[in-house]
Amino acid sequence: MHDDEQRKRIVIVGGGFAGLAAAKEFRRSSEVEITLIDRRNHHLFQPLLYQVAMAGLSPAEIVEPIRGILSRQKNARVLQGEVRGVDFDSNRVIADFGEVPYDYLIMACGAKHSYFGKPEWEQFAPGLKTLEQATEIRRRVLTAFENAERETDPENQKRLLTFVVVGGGPTGVELAGAIGEMSRYTLAKDFRANDASLARVILIEAGPRILPMFSPELATRAVRDLEHLGVQVWTSSMVSNINADGIAISSEKIQSATILWAAGVEASSLGRKLKLDIDRAGRVMVEADLSLKQHPQLFVLGDQAHVVQNDRPLPGIAPVAMQQGRFAAQNILGELAGKPRLEFKYVDKGQMATIGRSRAITEFGGWKFAGFFAWMAWLIVHIYYLTGFRNRFFVVMSWAWSYLTYRRGARLIVEKEWRFELPTVINSSQSADNSQ
Amino acid sequence: MHDDEQRKRIVIVGGGFAGLAAAKEFRRSSEVEITLIDRRNHHLFQPLLYQVAMAGLSPAEIVEPIRGILSRQKNARVLQGEVRGVDFDSNRVIADFGEVPYDYLIMACGAKHSYFGKPEWEQFAPGLKTLEQATEIRRRVLTAFENAERETDPENQKRLLTFVVVGGGPTGVELAGAIGEMSRYTLAKDFRANDASLARVILIEAGPRILPMFSPELATRAVRDLEHLGVQVWTSSMVSNINADGIAISSEKIQSATILWAAGVEASSLGRKLKLDIDRAGRVMVEADLSLKQHPQLFVLGDQAHVVQNDRPLPGIAPVAMQQGRFAAQNILGELAGKPRLEFKYVDKGQMATIGRSRAITEFGGWKFAGFFAWMAWLIVHIYYLTGFRNRFFVVMSWAWSYLTYRRGARLIVEKEWRFELPTVINSSQSADNSQ
Repeated sequence: MHDDEQRKRIVIVGGGFAGLAAAKEFRRSSEVEITLIDRRNHHLFQPLLYQVAMAGLSPAEIVEPIRGILSRQKNARVLQGEVRGVDFDSNRVIADFGEVPYDYLIMACGAKHSYFGKPEWEQFAPGLKTLEQATEIRRRVLTAFENAERETDPENQKRLLTFVVVGGGPTGVELAGAIGEMSRYTLAKDFRANDASLARVILIEAGPRILPMFSPELATRAVRDLEHLGVQVWTSSMVSNINADGIAISSEKIQSATILWAAGVEASSLGRKLKLDIDRAGRVMVEADLSLKQHPQLFVLGDQAHVVQNDRPLPGIAPVAMQQGRFAAQNILGELAGKPRLEFKYVDKGQMATIGRSRAITEFGGWKFAGFFAWMAWLIVHIYYLTGFRNRFFVVMSWAWSYLTYRRGARLIVEKEWRFELPTVINSSQSADNSQ
Repeated sequence: MHDDEQRKRIVIVGGGFAGLAAAKEFRRSSEVEITLIDRRNHHLFQPLLYQVAMAGLSPAEIVEPIRGILSRQKNARVLQGEVRGVDFDSNRVIADFGEVPYDYLIMACGAKHSYFGKPEWEQFAPGLKTLEQATEIRRRVLTAFENAERETDPENQKRLLTFVVVGGGPTGVELAGAIGEMSRYTLAKDFRANDASLARVILIEAGPRILPMFSPELATRAVRDLEHLGVQVWTSSMVSNINADGIAISSEKIQSATILWAAGVEASSLGRKLKLDIDRAGRVMVEADLSLKQHPQLFVLGDQAHVVQNDRPLPGIAPVAMQQGRFAAQNILGELAGKPRLEFKYVDKGQMATIGRSRAITEFGGWKFAGFFAWMAWLIVHIYYLTGFRNRFFVVMSWAWSYLTYRRGARLIVEKEWRFELPTVINSSQSADNSQ
């Protein structure tokens, strides 16, 4: 047993895939003490977040309290709080609750959506990165169907039953497919005045084809599967404007009450704040060992890091983050044991995307799958990586139930505001209006 | 089959226990067409709402879309919207989306919390009537433990680990018991700096004893069970003030960061707005057939109605609401068949309250139970009445898992605001401040 004095203090900022993998990799070491700081009390399994947005799963089913995950790892403590900066001279992390000194600092703060310099689009086209955004998207999609039921003007009804998803990556494909499936199967019998199964779903992609990270055959198959669910796929379509009425694509305009954003991504702003060397998407440029040249004690991982391999930056996906987390921890432990640092090499495990009910595409190594078996593979991989036995069990049961009944388990519209907060907000915006 | 012209239009406002029971009772009639209007898209099973607040269940597990419940009942349509008033001259309900004409109107709009003329207490002591409030209470309770972990000042730490529940009815008892259980079992091992199991939980009741609707023996047993979970029960304690620091009881003061309100209840404000004859709690005074003397086509049910039986007003509980819903529908169907109206008689099915893990008290007829068997009875009754097969299955599984592991399935802090809404709100309140 080492003295407390001798133990190296490892501070990890962010409890996502990268930060948590790093923390766990230290579990057998008595030479370090870990402090994991996160704004949230929970780890979020982002690959299934779109299912929360699409009323298939409940928020609690894809999260796990970080404190619970590290409960038995006695060398780790968890603090909930927001990191505001880093003092590189005194080696201290500055958080909203105080300062935390470190010997090694691991930053894995993730990414948020980017609107290509048009932040005003966000209110009309929310992105999908947090549970609150997922609940908001669910609220908008379900409310559009509810409003269409009360609407008597046919033009307005059409606008309410038009859903546009911007971005043809895996998230956009999964969102569009799920809306198509929901309108055709889940909601079809529940409405009297309108036919929910006639809802228009449009998937918009700026590039020449969707899912560019997949092979062209699989991407074509995905388009066919989407069309089967009534989703129209528009490629080479660049968004020129978004407002409360709808969306403009070059000179075309679509009236739509519900637009979802799955296009651009931008790293956490901490890299910019700390004046580190960043790329255009705000990702921190790191060395081959994932540390920084000027700050070798600082590692940056996951969606927040710009790591080039085979002349291309690594994608912002969970396998990359997890491998980087384990690697950074191993490098630190190695250094403490007097070994030189190693270089990070990503081992590509393949990729997959699901398209509505019982269809998916999967690609790994030279292998390509589509259809039901790809979907089964998708299910198994996601259940396997999901954190927590309870979550796994409940997600499997939710999926089984939805599969058998064509229903969705979480068709719940949660209101945006708590009643007792509303008056304050209304008053202040009213007085703001009056003063102008 | 009747013509559309001949069918009587029944409008039901509110999809709670009363409104839904009424709507379903009409299911076999081809003489009526039902329009159910609710602000929410879902029916909420309120008896289990405290479990959502206490991180035991997810919101989606205790709700069911109203549209889904009435999906197969072809004479019923559901509209999501807020009722603003009623035009009694033209027999029309005025909603935010338009007007709906009726031949019979059933109002069952429920109740909200009352702060005895101190609405400013609500921000410091939220009540538990809606899912949003339940999520907010969960956020406050879990955040208090998180903040205590980061706190270094012992006095402040004590304030953060002090939880006060106001109101010794079943909801207050259930909340206090659940906080006690959570601190002692679920969270005990997850914190490093503080001992969560030393959290103080205080249940405050203005009357001479808690659970006055139960027999004195059972109420005493409940006090003992609460004490076993570390809950201090203070009776004959009248709240004199609540603010951000804590709560004042006559001349005593308790420093507490988390105060929950389970004391007063007030009927929906619609009765007052419509200038109907109401009691002090805003409940509408109804005739023996649950209709109004001045408006015999209007029935008021559930928590919104003041119905006297055996010289006492009926309590605001689910069995009363369900029996009234069925009764009102039967009276209308009887009248359409030319029969005279009947008088409502509540059949008392008994009452129960649960106190933390595996303890409850149950009373029906002359029978009284406490302990494990009362708890089993509580479980079975609540599962039986819960709406939806899926919800029943998931709640049973959640409970089984929590019972075996001492964990809670929904330890999830959801933030109050969406990121993309924040700027607007902040700007408007800032400009409001500047203008003053």
